[in-house]
Amino acid sequence: MHTHGTDARAEHRELALFTDLYELTMLRAYYEEGMTGTAVFSLFVRRLPEQRNFLLACGLDSVLDYLENLRFSEADLEYLATLDRFPADFLERLRALRFTGNVYAVPEGTPLFADEPILELEAPLPEAQLAETFIMNQITVQTVLASKAARMVAAAGGRPVVDFGARRMHGLDAALKAARAFHIAGIASTSNVLAGRRYGVPLSGTMAHSYVQAHDDESAAFRNFARLYPGTVVLVDTYDTLAGVRRVIDLIKAGPDIDISAVRLDSGDLASLARESRRLLDTAGLSHIRILASGGLDEQRIAALVAEDVPIDGFGVGTSMGVSADAPDLDIAYKLCEYAGSGRLKLSAGKPILPGRKQVYRFGGDSGDERDLITLADEQAPGRPLLQPVMRNGTRLPAGETDINEARDYAAGQIARLPPRLLDLAAADPPYPVAISDALGAYQEQVREAVHERR
Amino acid sequence: MHTHGTDARAEHRELALFTDLYELTMLRAYYEEGMTGTAVFSLFVRRLPEQRNFLLACGLDSVLDYLENLRFSEADLEYLATLDRFPADFLERLRALRFTGNVYAVPEGTPLFADEPILELEAPLPEAQLAETFIMNQITVQTVLASKAARMVAAAGGRPVVDFGARRMHGLDAALKAARAFHIAGIASTSNVLAGRRYGVPLSGTMAHSYVQAHDDESAAFRNFARLYPGTVVLVDTYDTLAGVRRVIDLIKAGPDIDISAVRLDSGDLASLARESRRLLDTAGLSHIRILASGGLDEQRIAALVAEDVPIDGFGVGTSMGVSADAPDLDIAYKLCEYAGSGRLKLSAGKPILPGRKQVYRFGGDSGDERDLITLADEQAPGRPLLQPVMRNGTRLPAGETDINEARDYAAGQIARLPPRLLDLAAADPPYPVAISDALGAYQEQVREAVHERR
Repeated sequence: MHTHGTDARAEHRELALFTDLYELTMLRAYYEEGMTGTAVFSLFVRRLPEQRNFLLACGLDSVLDYLENLRFSEADLEYLATLDRFPADFLERLRALRFTGNVYAVPEGTPLFADEPILELEAPLPEAQLAETFIMNQITVQTVLASKAARMVAAAGGRPVVDFGARRMHGLDAALKAARAFHIAGIASTSNVLAGRRYGVPLSGTMAHSYVQAHDDESAAFRNFARLYPGTVVLVDTYDTLAGVRRVIDLIKAGPDIDISAVRLDSGDLASLARESRRLLDTAGLSHIRILASGGLDEQRIAALVAEDVPIDGFGVGTSMGVSADAPDLDIAYKLCEYAGSGRLKLSAGKPILPGRKQVYRFGGDSGDERDLITLADEQAPGRPLLQPVMRNGTRLPAGETDINEARDYAAGQIARLPPRLLDLAAADPPYPVAISDALGAYQEQVREAVHERR
Repeated sequence: MHTHGTDARAEHRELALFTDLYELTMLRAYYEEGMTGTAVFSLFVRRLPEQRNFLLACGLDSVLDYLENLRFSEADLEYLATLDRFPADFLERLRALRFTGNVYAVPEGTPLFADEPILELEAPLPEAQLAETFIMNQITVQTVLASKAARMVAAAGGRPVVDFGARRMHGLDAALKAARAFHIAGIASTSNVLAGRRYGVPLSGTMAHSYVQAHDDESAAFRNFARLYPGTVVLVDTYDTLAGVRRVIDLIKAGPDIDISAVRLDSGDLASLARESRRLLDTAGLSHIRILASGGLDEQRIAALVAEDVPIDGFGVGTSMGVSADAPDLDIAYKLCEYAGSGRLKLSAGKPILPGRKQVYRFGGDSGDERDLITLADEQAPGRPLLQPVMRNGTRLPAGETDINEARDYAAGQIARLPPRLLDLAAADPPYPVAISDALGAYQEQVREAVHERR
């Protein structure tokens, strides 16, 4: 079941200090006050970005890996002792701290909407509090990038999209997690070799301009590369795109030992260059040579090229997908919604919380999904429940094991069940309907009144 | 000289596979073709984002650390052997590969403009090629974030700005490197504890809404926290901001053991809430209690609050700085500009390259800097040269050691020398002038002609 790469397990060690300082100052206060009762925290997105009709949940495997490996090292404790905020007895409690709680989550690759829990933690208050920073960081970046990639896949209409973005992403971790998230979202392959090793994501790659430039002669560069790598893709725009295509044609005609499967265009007017390249190749009897395009592509440009029937067989994308340039962040929140058996919320303007542990039911028929209902965790409803127990008492359950190929298939199936308007790049009108159950609404009102009285 | 945190050195180990697949396919080709001559690659930004009047160069320390530690492990080579592209003799060459070249770079914290080299590598072609992905990734994220932070610092007009963004940034590495980059750019402190340990960045943090919510009574939460942490900052908006401020006033009046230094407002209309909070505190004789603000702040909102003289003494920022939301990417390029002693460039439309190794001279007087000149590396000019040798034959030179506190002072000094219009949030008109020397222009023309002839 759990078949990803060689060293993905225990990838998130020695990260107990990857937390905001206030988590630790609060932890000390919780311990001093004896506040170690069970808390429920819920992670959800308050509002979808304008440019997103759904999110694709991603990052759960990292969260569970972190929780399984959460412990403070001697070096961590020595550093904390230097901060003049943490007495020895607190550091001893940290030394013994492990995550012992339960986690409920939607599987990676689940389409999700505003207010719906991505995951809920049920654990002693200090444990759940400490994990906030890591959980938000990882679910955010992986969900942002998977959601963006799903748009690329939709725009490309079945043509493969390849991830070339490692060099433009925000740091090493983002580039690795991105390749994994993109795979789940339906991207064909990545150029990031370490992501291939770590997560088993398929790799692809061709040549750079520097390879061509370093040769005195473009034809020599193409010939040498094609001999080493039969079936390779050749980058033709270093000097002049169409001259490069003609050179490829001449090479193939001249040498039966030259096996080139595609040309890649990386600059200029891709639509006209692709059309003219296709014409040159077809005229030369090379209709089997494919045309790939890259260079500043986003989903809007891909959709436009596809809509105009430009003869491009696949797309390489970097920056815009790699940083989710149009929506790099999420209005995400990790909120206490129950403590010691009583529902909690805050009353800050415009930032409502749904109290208690919850479930999301998705309703649909043979023709696809139609609407969601957020309920209390113990309500029964006829739709299918999205949140599953994935960790119990700090131990991962089978439902918490993510095989990235299964997650990819699952995501494709779930996305295919969405109302088709949600796959448009423009804002879906109407948006996907999400309602709150009567029982949850009544409970929210009851907790709100209790909070009002208490303050 | 080199005084940063406990484990920053050799932070970038086991990253030889953090590279695009095509770097490795090209490497094999270079070895097979005997192309191991000296290459010069230049890293530069083609165009500043519209919302940036300058970039603040950052990330050099990570690059040098990576180059010093670059080697393929047995596990790396075993993985590569499974890819069916790389024969045993090539893997043996990878096993022996070390970075043996020279690096020239501007110090971290240098303001920089389009076309100016951030760094140049001079090394055997395969070594310089392999490092492309890592170098671009790290210089991009750190420069993007430092440049964004410099705007926050300028907008706040001397009031401290604190980094609360770890939870919203793109992954673990970005959140750590960000805290360091922000420190160099003038941000006061970070909430990210691991960044404090690793890089020695000052830490700060207060309490979360969940702490208040977990208590049955807001006053009890404030009281307990203030007793544990004398001089603490109290978060007052969990239920009702001004009621929270009144509670703080009552607590201070009631107990001489209550030591609170500031209140933090995190939602609602910050301008009117800060004014009313100030009035309540001043009326109670608590003029020394400061007011901090957070909650969706970016540099535009900070500048507006400062311009309106809103009584806010410091700002906490998260998402917008943490992902550089208005400009999350850079049009950055790492381009071959010389191989085996001859200048190289590509002719792709709209993407010119300055050939050869270069220098940037900055000209100014007592009143500040006025203009830059990009020259050939061996030209002499009266301004001060920005690029320094930082690594020779794979060994870091003293100029390649970055002390982050010295870099912070250096950045502040360099930013203060810029024409004042560059510190506006709006586009500087005119932009900072950057010219190319006659000799470099002539060399570019000569190389261009040679390339035209060769093809």
